[in-house]
Formats: sequence, C-alpha cells, structure tokens
Amino acid sequence: MPIPSLAQARVGIVGLGLMGGSLALALRGRVAHLLAVEPQVVARQMALREGFVDEATEVLTAGTPPLDLLVLAAPVRAILDTLGRLPGLRPAGCAVIDLGSTKRAVVAAMTALPGRFAVVGGHPMCGKETAGLASAAAGLYHGQTFVLCRVPRAAPQEAAEALALELVAAVGARPLWLDATEHDRLVAAVSHLPAVLSAALMRAAADERQWTVSASGFRDATRLAGSNPRMMLDILLTNREAVLAALGALRADLAGFEAALAAGDEAALADWLATAQVAHAAYRRFKSGDYLGRTERE
Amino acid sequence: MPIPSLAQARVGIVGLGLMGGSLALALRGRVAHLLAVEPQVVARQMALREGFVDEATEVLTAGTPPLDLLVLAAPVRAILDTLGRLPGLRPAGCAVIDLGSTKRAVVAAMTALPGRFAVVGGHPMCGKETAGLASAAAGLYHGQTFVLCRVPRAAPQEAAEALALELVAAVGARPLWLDATEHDRLVAAVSHLPAVLSAALMRAAADERQWTVSASGFRDATRLAGSNPRMMLDILLTNREAVLAALGALRADLAGFEAALAAGDEAALADWLATAQVAHAAYRRFKSGDYLGRTERE
Repeated sequence: MPIPSLAQARVGIVGLGLMGGSLALALRGRVAHLLAVEPQVVARQMALREGFVDEATEVLTAGTPPLDLLVLAAPVRAILDTLGRLPGLRPAGCAVIDLGSTKRAVVAAMTALPGRFAVVGGHPMCGKETAGLASAAAGLYHGQTFVLCRVPRAAPQEAAEALALELVAAVGARPLWLDATEHDRLVAAVSHLPAVLSAALMRAAADERQWTVSASGFRDATRLAGSNPRMMLDILLTNREAVLAALGALRADLAGFEAALAAGDEAALADWLATAQVAHAAYRRFKSGDYLGRTERE
Repeated sequence: MPIPSLAQARVGIVGLGLMGGSLALALRGRVAHLLAVEPQVVARQMALREGFVDEATEVLTAGTPPLDLLVLAAPVRAILDTLGRLPGLRPAGCAVIDLGSTKRAVVAAMTALPGRFAVVGGHPMCGKETAGLASAAAGLYHGQTFVLCRVPRAAPQEAAEALALELVAAVGARPLWLDATEHDRLVAAVSHLPAVLSAALMRAAADERQWTVSASGFRDATRLAGSNPRMMLDILLTNREAVLAALGALRADLAGFEAALAAGDEAALADWLATAQVAHAAYRRFKSGDYLGRTERE
C-alpha cells in the first residue's frame, strides 16, 4: 500500500507504556488518526479519557481498520512476537517502526517480513526509571537522540525511512542512523551494563539501616535498578553476547582494582581513579551545556 | 580550655574545599569568629573577598590565635596528619570535629590525643561530584544526615559533643550517632562501592562514539566517577577491609548473574532483576517524598 506523509497517516501504537504513551502525547494532533493497541484496560481507559489517542483496542487483529504506520512500543520480545504475526494481522501491509531497546533481533525479524511491509528499526535514547502510561510525558523525546536502523532487504524502504524521519522530527528528537549490531554493542556499555550494575548495587544495599546513611550518590547510582524487570529481561536476552562481553571486560578491570586495593598499591589506585575522572570530565564536555541543564529539568 | 557555645566560639575550618567552604557559608554570622586554614592562595583570596570567613591563613601553627573549635574538612589522610600534629599546634587544646568520609582511622587518631582536646568524629552525608570552593553552597548540608561518632576515651567529651550538635543544627542537618566501625561498613556499601562502580563504568565507556547514544541513565550511573581522586584514594585506603568485603560480595552476586545470562536462565534472571526492583521501590518509599524532590532541586 502507498505510504502517506505523517500528517496524513493513520498511526497505530502497539503498547501504551512510558514510551508508547509519551509518543502518543507527542504525536497528538500531528497525525490523521491515532490508535492505541494495549491489553491493559486501565491504560486504554486513561488514554481515551484524557484524549491521548482517538481510539484504543485490546489486540491487533486482521479486522482492525487499515493503518499506514505501526509503531511497536513494547519490550523487545513482545515486538518480536508481533513482527512474527504481522503478515496475518496486516494483510495489506503497512510501514512499521519499533522503539525496542535492542536492534539486532528486531532488524532480523523485520528483514523476514513480506515486501508489502516497509520497515525501520528505532530506538529513542530516553526513558525513566518509572514505567507505565502514568509516567508518560509529551516532552520525553524532546532533544534526545533517536537511533534509526536501516533494514537490509530487497524491497525499497525509502517511504518508511522518510516517515520515520518525520516522526523523529515531530517529537523533537535528533535522528542518528546506526547499524543494528553496532547499536547493540554501544548500548551494552552505556545502557545495559549500567542497569545491571545499578541492580547489583541495590541488591548489595537492600537494608534500611544502609539507606539511613545513603545520599544523592547512592540515589543516582541505583536509579536504573527501578527499571521494569520484564523490559530488562528482554534486553538482556536479545543482547546477550554484547552484555556478556561488556560484563567480562568490567570484571577484569574491577579485578585489577581489587588487587591494587588489597595490596595497598597507592600509585595504581590513583591512576585507576584519575583515568575515570578524566574520562568523566571529557564526557561532560562532550555533552556540553546539556549535562547540568538536564539534571535540573528532570 | 573551657568550650563555649557555638555562637560564642572562635571556629577554625581546616580545608576550604566543597565541604569546608559550604560549612563556612552555612556558619557565617552564627559564630564569634571564622578562620579558614587553606594552603591554596586562590581559595583563601576568594573566601576573604566574598566574606565566607573573617580570616584566612595558609597553615595552622602554634602561633595561630586561640580557637575554641577546629573543624577538619580535608581528605581523610590529611585529617589524620593534622590530628597527629595537633598537640604541638594547639598547646592549649580545643574542641575538634572532622568531616572525613571514613571514621574508624579518624576516631582512633582522636582517641590518642591528649586530654585537653575534646573530640567528636563527624561525616555529613552530602556532597557533589564537583570538588572545590567554587562548588560550595550554603544549603549543601540542609536536610541531610550528619553522622557523629563518639570517641571512646577517659577525658569527658560532652562539651565537644554538645558543640557538634549545635553545629549540625546550625547548618540544618540531622544528627545520627553511629559507631565508627559500623559507619565505615555502611558507607562502604552505599557510598564507596557506588563510587568504584561508577568509575569502572566510566572506564568501560570512555569513547565519544558510546557517548553519542548515552542518555540520562548513563549520566546518573557515572556521576560519582567525577569524584576527586585524592579524596577517593584516602577513603579507599582508610576503609580497605569494608570496601574489599563489599566488592567481594558484589563480585559473587555478579558472577551468579553472569552465569544465568550465559545459560539463558530466564527464571533466574527475572528473579535477580525483580529482587533489585523491589528493593529499589522500598528504598524510594523509605526516602519518601524527599526522593523526587531532591532530584529536582539538584
């Protein structure tokens, strides 16, 4: 089927949690029609009552009215499940983009779709440690990087890619084209590893007595421990190799640190700490004025 | 020498960095006289020019005018060094409190002081990832927990303890009496371990390409990597056993996680993640309304 521009598009968002809900809020009034597909009745009712979407349905079926663009906004394995059933659910085809946290498995599943689907992988680099529609905010994507992954397949994807760029612009994000494997390797280090360590820290300090003497350092270091376990599980299982590689490298580095501390090797410890501080200063400069600004806004 | 109330006290702050500078700002006008001891000329000049203190000197000597209360606000090993030289530097004695990040070594050094010194260990549970007088703020201590450690010795410490409580109240903090060993064990888990992991994360993602796809999760997880290496080194070397024990426990927990991920053991991973999320939710409730409020303020 021909793919219209975003303003003319009938858009379906599958999954009305933090990401899908925030997308609905950001797209409201900018598309021809907005349909939510969400199994939870409370979220559907809230979305309709507050006018987040024009229409809400429990599940996507072959009988659901035609859609030009389907946005898959669910944990990665739920996205994979929907992609597998898509040929039966959308006989006429449509453009498809996802918001999943890992991209290799999603892009592989997209590659396998029939030619009547025009597909792009997506991953907006934003979020919150609190999940669900109640945490959704129209400004969640604003100013953030939105990774897009081309799907290597015979059928032309230009229309879907143009629509994806329109969507990224509509929510105020910055598009960044990346190879899916490269994306997964990068986010293993800056997103999945921090989430795992944050959870490990929280498990190591799960006692009220410890919290009595905890300050903002602990609060920030453990923020990601609040992430939705279902979402994290899907991330870890669809990015296992990269996460294991990142964990292994971190384990080796920590072992060096531990040995230096046990030996009281002051020079080695000072060097280890200084390297981290220098990298942190460079990272702050890289993120420039944004860094403190965002801290204050959130 | 007799110890007056805080309002009548001549107070010396040794070390005019983030903690000492913020203390000076919070005490300004609430004590009889405020003297800064700070080796760096730029910090002394700034403190005098902006009226943080009444007087500033490069080093504490036996000739420095009498002081009723000495506040040691430096990295832990600098505090230990000053405590060791104190009998010669203050022939008349005085009340002494410190703001050091670890307490066992400091309390031991305080115990060894002559009876003319009245001593209390202190550790305000607040800070910033940016060090130095330029980051100082009068409100840094406000609403935060200020740990106090009694020093077990023959000479009566009541006057120093009363003065310490006055000081904690004057800066708007909440006093919490803790045993020094217990303190060091608790902060190893909620402060030192997070700092080490934050530095390890920063070392694992020290590449600009990684920063391109990093979001607020990475920013918060690596915030403590910006900590002053000198301060961290002193913390680690004076709390070695507790940090090594905390690291060892974390290493074992991470090894279990890694094995479950490598094996694709979904149930074990889900349980591991859920335990962290439940603890995080309980921690947020424990910190109550404060949690989000503080995030927004900082």
